[in-house]
Amino acid sequence: MAKAQKRHPKDESRAVKAVSDSTIRRLSEYYRRLNEMEEEGLEMVSSKELALRNGVTPAQVRKDFSIFGKFGRRGQGYTVRDLKGAISGILGTGRTWNVALVGLGKIGAALFHYKEFRKQGFHIVAVFDNDPAKIGGKIEEVEIFAPGRMREVVQEKGIAIGIVAVSGEAAQSAVDQLVAAGVQAILSFPMRRVAVPQGVHLKYVNMAVEMEGLSFLLANAGRRRSL
Amino acid sequence: MAKAQKRHPKDESRAVKAVSDSTIRRLSEYYRRLNEMEEEGLEMVSSKELALRNGVTPAQVRKDFSIFGKFGRRGQGYTVRDLKGAISGILGTGRTWNVALVGLGKIGAALFHYKEFRKQGFHIVAVFDNDPAKIGGKIEEVEIFAPGRMREVVQEKGIAIGIVAVSGEAAQSAVDQLVAAGVQAILSFPMRRVAVPQGVHLKYVNMAVEMEGLSFLLANAGRRRSL
Repeated sequence: MAKAQKRHPKDESRAVKAVSDSTIRRLSEYYRRLNEMEEEGLEMVSSKELALRNGVTPAQVRKDFSIFGKFGRRGQGYTVRDLKGAISGILGTGRTWNVALVGLGKIGAALFHYKEFRKQGFHIVAVFDNDPAKIGGKIEEVEIFAPGRMREVVQEKGIAIGIVAVSGEAAQSAVDQLVAAGVQAILSFPMRRVAVPQGVHLKYVNMAVEMEGLSFLLANAGRRRSL
Repeated sequence: MAKAQKRHPKDESRAVKAVSDSTIRRLSEYYRRLNEMEEEGLEMVSSKELALRNGVTPAQVRKDFSIFGKFGRRGQGYTVRDLKGAISGILGTGRTWNVALVGLGKIGAALFHYKEFRKQGFHIVAVFDNDPAKIGGKIEEVEIFAPGRMREVVQEKGIAIGIVAVSGEAAQSAVDQLVAAGVQAILSFPMRRVAVPQGVHLKYVNMAVEMEGLSFLLANAGRRRSL
């Protein structure tokens, strides 16, 4: 079943496509700004203030929130705490997700220690690596398993999300193993595109793409300015 | 001057706003697929094939390329090598950019070793960290400097891009130091939003946001399916 109907990654989320990726991203950002506001002791916030802190228009903020029903009261703005709760509910971060990390190289180890994951409810509860020197060991109390044990460990620990931090060559096989083990959502760090069967959600984190966004701006700034 | 007219980050690229962020992202992705095709020995590619490999429509591919003038010939598709060269020229990756890394903790060290940066022409030529145990040392032949030497080192080494991998609390100060040193493009990893003066390009890499995209899909898949 895992082999059937592989598709290209951009299609994976058709089931919930009514809400765009960029809306979800903005909700994540609003959530972070609201956290900062709470730390500053703010209790109420207007869509104008939220917009300003996120670099979007107030109309965009209101539009984003309207998708999910009514938040706040006309002319009074939003209660910071309620808004946080509502967004967290939408993003599915109001709960804990058990996560498997596949690949404990330099990137994998850095991801393991990335505090923001745990803060948002993403708990890495199992690590997989094919290095015999690592298998059977632990990293901060989390066991390191051979990839062959993935299905058993995923079931046992109720793992819902997999993070892939292996080389490009090993990426497809790591993803196939996660999918065969029953994982339905994967965050992939290698550059190489991978295929997943229908119903499995796949996202890439691509740091070089962001760098290229910057080099584009640097390379074209002069050109544009002279128009 | 660095303190004047700080703005929220989403506005930073108004000068080249004619080309959207998402177009640049897609160009980066096309470039990677073209690399893969070259490795497979393909010489020509149609917009249909490129679209398929990127999970977009052929019309989108043609639209993206049309922004920058004529590529390829009607009905004959594109020469893989020429298209790669053209995209690389647009992205500013057809050259080398000298990069400073600020913060050599776990995330910073992983970024230092991230091969894709160098492959795309982004060379980390200086590292800054305020740990006295690290200052004066080297990581793979690259010197580790005290942040106080940033201006001098940035000028001397012709550094154009800064990568910030410090804690959230230290993010704004690291960014201020880079800007004061003359760096005009910054990739920031801490969650905390930072402000930059007009003309400085700023991008964030936020891995937790991608995870939240997945948890949203998992949390809402059932709900949507039952509609």
